[in-house]
Amino acid sequence: MIHVKAYAAQSAASPIAPFSLDRRDPGPHDVQIDILYCGVCHSDLHQARNDWGNSLYPMVPGHEIVGRVKAVGAHVKRLKIGDLAGVGCMVDSCRHCAPCEAGLEQYCVEGATWTYNAHERGSQQLTFGGYSEAIVSDERFVVKIPPTMDLKAVAPLLCAGITTYSPLRHWKVGPGQKVGVIGLGGLGHMGVKFAKAFGAHVVMVTTSPGKGKDAIRLGADEVLVSKDLDAMAKAKGSFDFLLNTIPVGHDVNPYLELLKLDGAMVLVGALTPLDPVLGGNLIHGRRSLAGSGIGGMPETQEMIDFCAEHGIVSDVEMIRIQDINKAYERLLKNDVHYRFVIDMASLKDAG
Amino acid sequence: MIHVKAYAAQSAASPIAPFSLDRRDPGPHDVQIDILYCGVCHSDLHQARNDWGNSLYPMVPGHEIVGRVKAVGAHVKRLKIGDLAGVGCMVDSCRHCAPCEAGLEQYCVEGATWTYNAHERGSQQLTFGGYSEAIVSDERFVVKIPPTMDLKAVAPLLCAGITTYSPLRHWKVGPGQKVGVIGLGGLGHMGVKFAKAFGAHVVMVTTSPGKGKDAIRLGADEVLVSKDLDAMAKAKGSFDFLLNTIPVGHDVNPYLELLKLDGAMVLVGALTPLDPVLGGNLIHGRRSLAGSGIGGMPETQEMIDFCAEHGIVSDVEMIRIQDINKAYERLLKNDVHYRFVIDMASLKDAG
Repeated sequence: MIHVKAYAAQSAASPIAPFSLDRRDPGPHDVQIDILYCGVCHSDLHQARNDWGNSLYPMVPGHEIVGRVKAVGAHVKRLKIGDLAGVGCMVDSCRHCAPCEAGLEQYCVEGATWTYNAHERGSQQLTFGGYSEAIVSDERFVVKIPPTMDLKAVAPLLCAGITTYSPLRHWKVGPGQKVGVIGLGGLGHMGVKFAKAFGAHVVMVTTSPGKGKDAIRLGADEVLVSKDLDAMAKAKGSFDFLLNTIPVGHDVNPYLELLKLDGAMVLVGALTPLDPVLGGNLIHGRRSLAGSGIGGMPETQEMIDFCAEHGIVSDVEMIRIQDINKAYERLLKNDVHYRFVIDMASLKDAG
Repeated sequence: MIHVKAYAAQSAASPIAPFSLDRRDPGPHDVQIDILYCGVCHSDLHQARNDWGNSLYPMVPGHEIVGRVKAVGAHVKRLKIGDLAGVGCMVDSCRHCAPCEAGLEQYCVEGATWTYNAHERGSQQLTFGGYSEAIVSDERFVVKIPPTMDLKAVAPLLCAGITTYSPLRHWKVGPGQKVGVIGLGGLGHMGVKFAKAFGAHVVMVTTSPGKGKDAIRLGADEVLVSKDLDAMAKAKGSFDFLLNTIPVGHDVNPYLELLKLDGAMVLVGALTPLDPVLGGNLIHGRRSLAGSGIGGMPETQEMIDFCAEHGIVSDVEMIRIQDINKAYERLLKNDVHYRFVIDMASLKDAG
């Protein structure tokens, strides 16, 4: 067993606080990573507070994990001691269903094993996330990070990055297309960067006129303020693709109307019920409303390599682990540009 | 002007009753058709009674029109006097937008001109549908019907047929796929026939166990009763494609859960608001909820030719025009197998 300092929530009501945990010793296919940075995803907050009603305690959140390889099992091939490495939202899957065999482990028919707030496969042992000193994971669920990258700003790529990269690739977003990214937060700011890097004409669609300037800085060609009904009416039927990063249920109808013939809007944030969709908004224009969740492990590595090649990382604001509860409060107010990342060196000061 | 006997609704409250109308003389690109049969679509009833709040009176419903060519304009190429011909839901479109240029006139950016309950392009003249002796339409919006076909059973192909054929083609339904057709009515019975003809394994998904036997007769390989929660649970994640013919808003979530990775459900009936869609049902499995409306004119001709080649027509119940109001009442109770078709010879007896 490896004894690890960590921070955990003990219940829905308790703040994130110091916690000790034991990780398994690395097996023959495992990689042991000393965690250097961990991004703070909106879903960390929801799960820590049991907003989705499925929380398991004690919970060590964090699934945007980067660090340095400390040890590898005898059969590990892609990684060696000293490499920079990352772990995202999954640490295991069944590995034999059709999606797993296609490298789409996130859609595992039996359900992927999530990095935290889950049980290890075939065990009652809870999984524990990245708000901790170290993690041990099977090599298949570890990506290799090129040493040229700004590691702290790589962390959010493991969730916010792949969640936006994957649908833009799957729906073949590229040159000649007008693409909207709805919502400018952790996911949205990565969506803008990727859609731009793929060659699309990128429009930031936001409720907040104040976010326009920043959207342009991130790479957007235009800003469409969704509360400006005249601008929305003028934009009807003009978009090839919409990446919808809004993290809660909302009225998607005004966005569907923005799509041209055969256009698709893909949800990556809202797991909860949407306001009633008007069937006619799908039938007129043969539009699609779809969803997409993170990405498979081969595509996650592809995304990291793409980012290294194109100089793409997240815009991050560094925090100490001791400030995680304050960070959650700011997250609730969308007061972050655009992702908090915990400097795990701060954990040394923990009790 | 051509003077034509017809049946019309004069208001939302009035029954369909005898009516006289004038059609334009055929211009150089027009075809004049003596109507022999006209199918009765659910939307006839909704529009006659102003259920959608957009009705224009007097209204001559009917957009599943077949008959014999009586006259052709000088520039008409595809049709000649004596040919069997059909007119569906559209009689015009802008003809220069991208969808029109692609032969997808139903998605015309300016809006197609519907066969009834619309205005002729650039005019205040109402369009009048098929509950009448004759119709005059531009050749582009007329299909040619092979003389080998059972004409009365061809009529519903012009709406119910193309509405189901087009999405099954667009989403490339074929051998090796498990395809569900949801709802066994005018659209659903054609969906089963086409999905089977395209080589898919076809499952009729219905609320009514009593419809199972008929679904098998129509070509379904299996029946899934959607009120049987155990059967629905067992079928989760097993469908490649679902054609949803339910004509009103409903809860699509139990159907979305039937789809496997990258599966799509396409709405062809419900124009009105759906019950709230759970975003997670789209995100898990990267599923799509889409819509599709009728088909373009080239595809409508392709569908007719496919039906002629494969011996496909609708199952029809013949009525006299004098019985149209009774037929509407039976439609409201889903008491038809599977489409009423008006024998327009009965119009000779009209006042």
